[in-house]
Amino acid sequence: MKAVAVRRGERRPELVEMPRPEAAEGEALVQVRRVGIDGTDHEVIAGGHGGFPPGEDRLVLGHEAVGVVEDPNGTGLSEGRHVVPTVRRPPDGTNEYFERGEPDMAPAGAYVERGIAGAHGFMAEYVTSPAEFLVPVPESLADVGFLIEPLSNAEKALDHAAASREAFTWDPGSALVLGNGPLGLLTLARLEHERRYCLGRRDRPDPTIEVIEGLGATYVDSRETAVEAFADAHEPADLVVEATGDPRHPFAAIEALAPGGVAAILGVPGDATLELEAGALHRELVLENKALVGSVNSSVPHFEAAIDSLAAMPEWFTRDLITGVYPPEDAAAAFETGPDRIKTVVEF
Amino acid sequence: MKAVAVRRGERRPELVEMPRPEAAEGEALVQVRRVGIDGTDHEVIAGGHGGFPPGEDRLVLGHEAVGVVEDPNGTGLSEGRHVVPTVRRPPDGTNEYFERGEPDMAPAGAYVERGIAGAHGFMAEYVTSPAEFLVPVPESLADVGFLIEPLSNAEKALDHAAASREAFTWDPGSALVLGNGPLGLLTLARLEHERRYCLGRRDRPDPTIEVIEGLGATYVDSRETAVEAFADAHEPADLVVEATGDPRHPFAAIEALAPGGVAAILGVPGDATLELEAGALHRELVLENKALVGSVNSSVPHFEAAIDSLAAMPEWFTRDLITGVYPPEDAAAAFETGPDRIKTVVEF
Repeated sequence: MKAVAVRRGERRPELVEMPRPEAAEGEALVQVRRVGIDGTDHEVIAGGHGGFPPGEDRLVLGHEAVGVVEDPNGTGLSEGRHVVPTVRRPPDGTNEYFERGEPDMAPAGAYVERGIAGAHGFMAEYVTSPAEFLVPVPESLADVGFLIEPLSNAEKALDHAAASREAFTWDPGSALVLGNGPLGLLTLARLEHERRYCLGRRDRPDPTIEVIEGLGATYVDSRETAVEAFADAHEPADLVVEATGDPRHPFAAIEALAPGGVAAILGVPGDATLELEAGALHRELVLENKALVGSVNSSVPHFEAAIDSLAAMPEWFTRDLITGVYPPEDAAAAFETGPDRIKTVVEF
Repeated sequence: MKAVAVRRGERRPELVEMPRPEAAEGEALVQVRRVGIDGTDHEVIAGGHGGFPPGEDRLVLGHEAVGVVEDPNGTGLSEGRHVVPTVRRPPDGTNEYFERGEPDMAPAGAYVERGIAGAHGFMAEYVTSPAEFLVPVPESLADVGFLIEPLSNAEKALDHAAASREAFTWDPGSALVLGNGPLGLLTLARLEHERRYCLGRRDRPDPTIEVIEGLGATYVDSRETAVEAFADAHEPADLVVEATGDPRHPFAAIEALAPGGVAAILGVPGDATLELEAGALHRELVLENKALVGSVNSSVPHFEAAIDSLAAMPEWFTRDLITGVYPPEDAAAAFETGPDRIKTVVEF
């Protein structure tokens, strides 16, 4: 079968021929339909994040997938059912995090990530997976179901951020999303705050700004209004969601927050040493009861929440978000970036 | 009546004579028994924090008090009942934060703080207060009841920190308290984690180290083991409570935390610019699902929780914590600090 992989020492995606996987006991065979591409895939290809499966010199890419059950293989799934696979798997048998359905909370060493680190991904004609890691989705989401995985990461982050404010009355009216990449835009579309802002650094005309404004939100150009200046320029935000991976942003978010506000931190930056007004940030965190909540990955309940959220999003939003659909033979083109692109997908 | 106040332009506590306050409607008259002294009082005297009541040139000190109802004045309180006053009051009539019993969540401008900013404190023979801000305490806590206010701040911080971890299974086994001042030690005595650590920078023999070890906890000397090095030297902490006011500590706490851990931040530092490994901190916050929760002040439910916690603490602990009891005439001596002192109190 066809698959898109990166080889050790190479820094580009490549079409490869692989044997079709066979479903072991408890696993179903899934025919993959679409696989989305995101920043993590670019980091994996660049070698800055992730790693090859043990003993192999290539990694099948892709962790944002939707497919159809080809062979239930005795699991409870039905043939023809649309499913989205979760990303993390236990490295050896199982462990407490997987046993209680919270692999997203597992520490390093207690998981591999399909398509990212230590296990092949989903960018292939067929994949197998234990049924417990296949989340059924309505057929109506077949074309956009690959958005469920990234959206599930936002669902988890929002869930954890909201939990951190549950010890008091919290009625957030304003939200600021840092980042107008696919994750930022999906998060923005998911939020129901009365006043929503999305920070980016693109010039008009730009498809992401059109999406932001189409959603009724305000575009904030970070070159004109830094995160530190957001509260004065607009209003303090009850919620900030950081989806840029810019190491200045978790700290600057403290200044963007309203009293009692929380920032959900999602980005994964490289190393950076910064000079920060640590005293003022510390004081503001305390005297204004602010919180920072880091969040990575997601588990089945977050996928289920993402399914509901995605189903409620307007059709134009996902249509405009998906700027390119490519066959696996054109995977290299699918991985290109540019100002006219938001989210690209490989279709089998 | 006698009171201990600071005058504008002065930087020392002073015994003053003031008229005995008269209880307005809804207020009770309280005979003050004991008033504790903490770091905030020192900051108030030094002029670095707080402010005088409108139109006045002196501020009665004290926000950690216990007293006895002298005249219920038609409120539901009984004469002779021991009570502890809360600290925040609405500046004008009331506002939404006070109406819903969450003055601790009010932003700047929506509260004054008795003994700290904008309203006289409790270091006087008599005080009046609306009955809703007087929390009844058992007579058995009469001598130590002034510890309820600081402990209530820890209760709130722990409550908010725990809430932030409620979206997943969290079973914290280890806790690190940063700071061996009275708030740090009260917090340490309150915690029920299997393994507890308390960070300070005092040489043995030292009364705070004796208290730490008497509680079964491990003393960590920050001159030997910095917060950043704690996890390697001991173990990653599921919970960190910052009670030092050191602006390095909220950021260093990220490194001390175990995956899925939370740091409750309580200190109020001055300005400080620091060079931080922002990229690594950002990454660790995200990839290990860590959280920082700032917390200030407390409301009636936290006082009630503190009453239960204080009642459960061993008698030796509060006896050793209170290193000096002074009459108001010796207030200046009560405000002195030194290596043989932990918590001092003015007794009327």
